[in-house]
Amino acid sequence: MSKSNKGRFFEDFTIGETLVHATPRTVSEGDQALYTALYGARFAPQAADSLAQDIGLPAAPLDDLLVFHVIFGKSVPDISLNAVANLGYAGGLFLQPVFPGDTLSAVSEVIGMKENSNGKTGVVYVETVGRNQVGEAVLRFYRWVMVKKREGAGALAEPKLPDLPKAVTPDQLVAPLDLDFSALEPALSGGAHFWEDYSAGERIDHVDGTTIEEAEHQLATRLYHNSARVHFNQHAEAQGRFGKRIVYGGHIISIARALSFNGLENAFFLAAINGGRHSAPSFGGDTIYAWSEVLESAPLPDRKDLGALRLRTVAAKNRAVGDFPLEDEEGKLDPAVVLDLDYWVLMPRQP
Amino acid sequence: MSKSNKGRFFEDFTIGETLVHATPRTVSEGDQALYTALYGARFAPQAADSLAQDIGLPAAPLDDLLVFHVIFGKSVPDISLNAVANLGYAGGLFLQPVFPGDTLSAVSEVIGMKENSNGKTGVVYVETVGRNQVGEAVLRFYRWVMVKKREGAGALAEPKLPDLPKAVTPDQLVAPLDLDFSALEPALSGGAHFWEDYSAGERIDHVDGTTIEEAEHQLATRLYHNSARVHFNQHAEAQGRFGKRIVYGGHIISIARALSFNGLENAFFLAAINGGRHSAPSFGGDTIYAWSEVLESAPLPDRKDLGALRLRTVAAKNRAVGDFPLEDEEGKLDPAVVLDLDYWVLMPRQP
Amino acid sequence: MSKSNKGRFFEDFTIGETLVHATPRTVSEGDQALYTALYGARFAPQAADSLAQDIGLPAAPLDDLLVFHVIFGKSVPDISLNAVANLGYAGGLFLQPVFPGDTLSAVSEVIGMKENSNGKTGVVYVETVGRNQVGEAVLRFYRWVMVKKREGAGALAEPKLPDLPKAVTPDQLVAPLDLDFSALEPALSGGAHFWEDYSAGERIDHVDGTTIEEAEHQLATRLYHNSARVHFNQHAEAQGRFGKRIVYGGHIISIARALSFNGLENAFFLAAINGGRHSAPSFGGDTIYAWSEVLESAPLPDRKDLGALRLRTVAAKNRAVGDFPLEDEEGKLDPAVVLDLDYWVLMPRQP
Repeated sequence: MSKSNKGRFFEDFTIGETLVHATPRTVSEGDQALYTALYGARFAPQAADSLAQDIGLPAAPLDDLLVFHVIFGKSVPDISLNAVANLGYAGGLFLQPVFPGDTLSAVSEVIGMKENSNGKTGVVYVETVGRNQVGEAVLRFYRWVMVKKREGAGALAEPKLPDLPKAVTPDQLVAPLDLDFSALEPALSGGAHFWEDYSAGERIDHVDGTTIEEAEHQLATRLYHNSARVHFNQHAEAQGRFGKRIVYGGHIISIARALSFNGLENAFFLAAINGGRHSAPSFGGDTIYAWSEVLESAPLPDRKDLGALRLRTVAAKNRAVGDFPLEDEEGKLDPAVVLDLDYWVLMPRQP
Repeated sequence: MSKSNKGRFFEDFTIGETLVHATPRTVSEGDQALYTALYGARFAPQAADSLAQDIGLPAAPLDDLLVFHVIFGKSVPDISLNAVANLGYAGGLFLQPVFPGDTLSAVSEVIGMKENSNGKTGVVYVETVGRNQVGEAVLRFYRWVMVKKREGAGALAEPKLPDLPKAVTPDQLVAPLDLDFSALEPALSGGAHFWEDYSAGERIDHVDGTTIEEAEHQLATRLYHNSARVHFNQHAEAQGRFGKRIVYGGHIISIARALSFNGLENAFFLAAINGGRHSAPSFGGDTIYAWSEVLESAPLPDRKDLGALRLRTVAAKNRAVGDFPLEDEEGKLDPAVVLDLDYWVLMPRQP
Repeated sequence: MSKSNKGRFFEDFTIGETLVHATPRTVSEGDQALYTALYGARFAPQAADSLAQDIGLPAAPLDDLLVFHVIFGKSVPDISLNAVANLGYAGGLFLQPVFPGDTLSAVSEVIGMKENSNGKTGVVYVETVGRNQVGEAVLRFYRWVMVKKREGAGALAEPKLPDLPKAVTPDQLVAPLDLDFSALEPALSGGAHFWEDYSAGERIDHVDGTTIEEAEHQLATRLYHNSARVHFNQHAEAQGRFGKRIVYGGHIISIARALSFNGLENAFFLAAINGGRHSAPSFGGDTIYAWSEVLESAPLPDRKDLGALRLRTVAAKNRAVGDFPLEDEEGKLDPAVVLDLDYWVLMPRQP
C-alpha cells in the first residue's frame, strides 16, 4: 500500500533472480577528495595524476575501496535493509580501474538461500557485479547476509548453498595493463620496499590509530549511497542492541587500509578480497589500529612489473597492536579485534 | 569606523533598493559530492551523468536545493545577519538547471517593509534572484525576515506590504526542455511509481531518520557561504536563547528531501517552493524524520513527459512519523514538527 | 626491522641533506569544495571562475592556505612525526597561483641543527619548497621543529643555525601577472575598502567566531595528507599532555583567515608568511575569534593594480576579541591567544 520501501524479507528473494540496483552514480574528483579527507589515504597512483601517468595510467584512478563501497552501497536497499547481519564476503575481484567521471551501476543475482532452523531468519547469498558506463565489469563479489522472515511466513521448499571460493587464486587477479614503474622515484611513493621485500609470515604493525567521529562515518556512508538504517539514526538505535549507531563495516576496512600505508606504501592496488569478518561492531569515539600479516607472495603470470601479496589485515579498537592481537592459544578471538580481512594487493617489483 | 560588517538594521533598508550580493561562487563536482555526503540524496538525474544524458540533459545537474542554498547563502550577509527570525518564503521558482562549472550570483530587491508595534523590530520583504554566469535567472524567491532596529531609531514613514503569491500555479512551473524518459529503466531510479500513481490526499511515511551532527550542519552551511552566526559559534550561543547552535533551516529541508526519496523516488526535479515554515529549531543530536502528503496533482501544459505534484513535506524531530504528525484537532501544532514545506516537484509520467 | 615508519629522530638528520617527500597530490575542485565547507572562505578570486577571469586569471585559483597545508603536510612524515613542538615559520613566499588539476610535490633541505642542552631533544631547521607538475616553485618556507633524540644518542659535533629573514620585504613579494580589477564590481567581492584605505596601526575586529568540531579538524588535516599523530588518535592522546587530540595549527590559521574576510574582504592573495606563533593548543569544542592589525602598507614595485599590506592576525579561543587581546603591559601573553601570525596580503588599489 505505502510507496515507501521497508526492505525485502527472506521470502521476497528467489534463487536465480536478478536485482538491478538503483541509483547509478557518477564518481568524481569530489568523491576522491572526500575519500582522502575521510581516511587520509596516501597511496601514490591514486593521489597524483602525474604519478599515475608516469606509470602508464591515463590519470589517477579512484581508490579501489571507494569503488567497492559505491557498488556495495547500491545493493543495500535491495539486499540488506532488513539484514540482521552481514555474514561474509568472498571472491571479490577488482577488474578495471575506475576514473573520475565514470558512472558506476550494480546488479546482483541471488545464488543461494537457506532458512535458519529458528524459522525466523534465513541466509541469502548474492553475487554482485559493478559496471562502468560502457558496461565493463569493474568489480565482482559474493556476499551473504542474514535476513528476517516476515512473521508467520512459511518454510522455503529447498535450500541451496552456492559453492564459493575460499580465496581468489593469483592467476585470477587482474592487473592494469602495461604499467612501467621505472620512472617512479621511490621517495615519491613513500616506500622503499617492493614485492620481493615481503615474505609470507612477516607481520607489520601499522603503528598509528584513528579515532572515528560520528559525523565522519555518516558522511562516508551517505557518500556511498548506503542507506542501512543502523548507521544514521541515533533516535532509533538508542532502543537497539547497542544503544548507539553502528559504524558501516566498510568504513573500518578503509581506515585499516589507510593505516596500512605505514609499512605497505607500495601496495598500490587492491586486486581481490578473499574474505572478511567484522568480528565486533565499531562506534563513534572508537580508535582503530591495524596490523598486517603477509599470507602469501605470488608472481603474476607474464608480468615483470608487479607481484601479488596476499595479506591479512587485522583492525582492533582502543588498543595498540604492536603485539599483533588476533586469537589466543585456545582460538578465542581477542575482544578488541573488529576486522579480519583477507585480500590480495599488487605491488611493484624491485626496479 | 570599523571596516567589519556587523549586519544591516531595519532602518538601513529602503523600499525599492537593489542589493548586489557577494560572493559569486562556482559550483563544482566537489560541491555535489559534499552534498551527497551530507544528505545521501539519491534522485537519479542528479546522481549519474549517464542517466541524465539518457533523458536528454547534457550532464547531471546539481541538486536543486544545493542551488537554493547557495543563492540563499549569498543574501544572508546583506539581509539577515541581524535577523531575529526568518519568517517565511513564497513564490520560489526554479528556472534553469545548474551544472558543475556554473557560477552563481544573487541580487535582492527590497519589496516591502513594516515596522513592528514594539518599535524594536521590523519585517523586511525581499525578492532574491539567482543567476548563472551568462546571466540567466536560475532561481527566484521571495522571503521575509524580522530584523532589529538600532536602539533609539525613529519610526519609518509608511509601511508597504508586498502582494505575495499563496502558491505558484502549475502554468508557472518551468520544466527542463525536451526530456525523454523512454530509455530510463525504472529499476535504475529506484522507483516504480510515476506521476499518475500519486493522487491528492495520499500520505507517505518516508520511514527513515537522520541524526544531525554539529560538524555536518556546520560543513553544509559554510559550503553555502551562509555566514549567519547562530549556526557556528557555540561560545556565543551558550549565552543565547537555546544555549546552543541552531541548525540552518535549509539543512532540515535538504534532510527531509533526501528522506523523501523513500516513496518519492521519481520526484526528480524541484520546480517551486510555495512556502515553508520552520516551526521549531533543530540542534546537533536531533534525529529528523519526514512524511509527505500529495496536495495537488497537475499536468504540465504541452508536456507528455512530466507531470507536477504539489507536496507538503513535514519533518519532525526525535519521533517516528508513521502517524503523520502535524496539528491536533484544535489546530495546535505537534511540538515535534520542525518543518512544514509546501512545494512542487516534477515527476515522469507512466511510460 | 619493521617496515613501518616511526618517524625520524634528531640524529637521523644531516645538515645539507635533501628530503624528497611522499606523496605528490593532485589538488582538485573537490579539495577546494571541502576547503570551503571547512572554513567558509569567501574571498572573491578563489570563489568564482568568472570573477577570476574578469581580473585576468585563467580560472579561480585554490586558496593559498590550502596550497600551504598540502605542501606542509607532505613534509610531516619526514620532518615532524616525532616533533615535540613546531617552533616557528619564516620566509614563507607564495610564488605561483595553483589551480585545480595541478599536482603538488615537496622537497625539504636541512639547513640547520642544534642540540638542546638537556641532551634529549634538538632543533632541526628546514627549507621546504613546493612545486607544481611542471616543476615551477609555488611556495617556499622555512620552519624549525624540536625533535626527540633516541635514548642514549650521543652529542652532535657542531651546531649550525641558519640565518633566517625576520620578514619578507615588499620587493620580494610575487603577485600574479597582469591583473586588471577595473571590471570587478566592489559589491561582488563584498568589500568597499581598497589598499589605500588601510593604514599601519589600524585594528579590525573580525567579529565572528567559529567552533571547532573534532570531525572537522580531522577531515581537514587528513585532506592535507598531514599524518601527525596528535591530531587523530584520542586513545593515545588520552594519555598525553592534554588528555585530548590537538588541532593542527594550520587549521587555526585557516579559520582566522576565513574570519578575517569580515573587514579584509579584498585581501585577495596571501603573498608571504613572515612568521607565526601557535602560543597555545586548540581542541575540539573551542571557539576561535580573530582580529587583525595592519603592520605596514607598501606599494608593489611597478604595479598599479595591487598593493601589499603586512598584517598581524591574532586568534583567541573562547572569548570575543573586540578589545584586541595580545599582551598585557608587562608583555605577558593573554592566555586566550592561540595564534599570532605575521603575513603579507595583496589587495587591489582604489579603482
